[in-house]
Amino acid sequence: MATIRDIAKKANVAVSTVSYVLNNRKKVKPETKERIMQVIEELNYQPRSVARSLKTKKTLTIGIMLPDICNLFFTETTRGIEDVANKYGYNVILCNTDKDSKKEKEYLNTLYSKDIDGIIFIGTCRNHHIIKNKQDTPIVFINSKVGDNICSVLVDDIKGGYTATKYLLERRKSEVTLLTGPLSRSSFFERMTGYLNALKSEGIEYNELLVHQCDVSFQGGYDIIRTIYDEGSGIKSIFAASDVIALGAVRALIEKGVRVPEDVSVVGYDDISIAGMFIPSLTTIHQPKYWMGEKAAELLIKRIEDRSLKSEHIVLEPKLIVREST
Amino acid sequence: MATIRDIAKKANVAVSTVSYVLNNRKKVKPETKERIMQVIEELNYQPRSVARSLKTKKTLTIGIMLPDICNLFFTETTRGIEDVANKYGYNVILCNTDKDSKKEKEYLNTLYSKDIDGIIFIGTCRNHHIIKNKQDTPIVFINSKVGDNICSVLVDDIKGGYTATKYLLERRKSEVTLLTGPLSRSSFFERMTGYLNALKSEGIEYNELLVHQCDVSFQGGYDIIRTIYDEGSGIKSIFAASDVIALGAVRALIEKGVRVPEDVSVVGYDDISIAGMFIPSLTTIHQPKYWMGEKAAELLIKRIEDRSLKSEHIVLEPKLIVREST
Repeated sequence: MATIRDIAKKANVAVSTVSYVLNNRKKVKPETKERIMQVIEELNYQPRSVARSLKTKKTLTIGIMLPDICNLFFTETTRGIEDVANKYGYNVILCNTDKDSKKEKEYLNTLYSKDIDGIIFIGTCRNHHIIKNKQDTPIVFINSKVGDNICSVLVDDIKGGYTATKYLLERRKSEVTLLTGPLSRSSFFERMTGYLNALKSEGIEYNELLVHQCDVSFQGGYDIIRTIYDEGSGIKSIFAASDVIALGAVRALIEKGVRVPEDVSVVGYDDISIAGMFIPSLTTIHQPKYWMGEKAAELLIKRIEDRSLKSEHIVLEPKLIVREST
Repeated sequence: MATIRDIAKKANVAVSTVSYVLNNRKKVKPETKERIMQVIEELNYQPRSVARSLKTKKTLTIGIMLPDICNLFFTETTRGIEDVANKYGYNVILCNTDKDSKKEKEYLNTLYSKDIDGIIFIGTCRNHHIIKNKQDTPIVFINSKVGDNICSVLVDDIKGGYTATKYLLERRKSEVTLLTGPLSRSSFFERMTGYLNALKSEGIEYNELLVHQCDVSFQGGYDIIRTIYDEGSGIKSIFAASDVIALGAVRALIEKGVRVPEDVSVVGYDDISIAGMFIPSLTTIHQPKYWMGEKAAELLIKRIEDRSLKSEHIVLEPKLIVREST
């Protein structure tokens, strides 16, 4: 394999001149530069990034911290991040934390010790003290806001919850059952806030018996509906604050002989890829998942390349997609 | 931040001794080693991987080349790879090639210039000459066999196609329509080979009018069924060589007023996560996707750590999962 010395020799210049050209450091006469580039081409020389990154202090690598790539929401967002990263010549290291604080900590330490240029978090960070100590490394959060100093890309979940509930109330003129994930998570808390705002705007009193917390999974939605019907209660319409909960709920309703949407209307949240394929296809609140990833990667790379930039917070509008389940 | 010099000073040893301990190179007296480790702990010293990798020649990073992380099949496999990599202290760089030869080439060059320790390909490689020239870097293929010298993890697709078809023939005693992706891809070719073997074993003649190639997507399956019915033909049972094709086909059948499974039985292939949630849930051939990723990562890391190991080829058995669509 060709070395920088071989190039210098063949181009008849000093090693340092080749180095200037490779690292774009000092002005080199155009004709000399041209000659060096030609020799680089001829000898098929590839500068080794590891060695080079010691000089330029950039590894052109960013880390993605997320709970689990198999969650359909994260998959699309990750793809958006990777596409933008690739466009700018960066690679992404994928880290599945399983929301495990210890695992997250180990990943963070590894990423920092590999001198990555920046990190994108999808969701919450459980080791804030670590990233606080590494303020040189830009960070962007998706779906979580952790203060004004750290960039974030968010969706207006209050508005999303409001839109879904208002739509059901106007269409059905009846009570809306809310199926939600843990309200300790800000996104679910805000969707419920939107639900409450919509009730208020229609002059409907809040009934806590209509709000059910469950696991954010197909099984979670399925089980909660079975429990409600087994207790002898009925349902008129459902706003499920996550598509997987909604799909599990639809499945349980159909097994109980309840028709969707004739007997019960269902609105989900997220617009994961299978929402449109399902039978019946799911009315839902669309989150621009891919776009959130793109936006986050752009924010991050801008900050890697210019450390003086201030933090930005981007809030995206969710959108109602009407399909067969309502 | 503490340097190796600070440690040497505080532990009262030579810098080279600290280096021996850090890189596990030479025997150091246990009590000296103990003292050095203590100082490392005290000073919270973190060896910088970039600098260190120049010495150990390992970056503890592997690349995953795949068409698109959003394809549900690849997502689970990627998770399996990442889990094993993490267990052994490796990170994974994610590369979405979109089956684009130029993009794949650029990724390969970047990965090699970053001195990654190994690469896992999910699916085909379109730039074989590049990996041939880099035989020092171990490679494992998933779902594609490219010669005896390169490790692979495969599923026995002939057996899978046979099992699906045989099951439909025995159950329905009628003709089986095959919906398949491009037969130029070995996995689809082998599933069709299994289909033909099953026909033969039942003494049924092959009818090429029953074989339809379509796009490997929900839309592909949906469109092909609409075309078949619009032409006035009917269908008795379907083996779709991919779950997404099967789900699109089921949707089109139901829109046409055809009941599944009462009028038409449908068997898919892959067992993607939504296959069990769909209404009706899909009978399918299960591929151990997560496990394939795990197995591939284990093969790769074994070869990174011991270059003398010979290639291995692992062939996994697919399994029929019976659900509501048959």
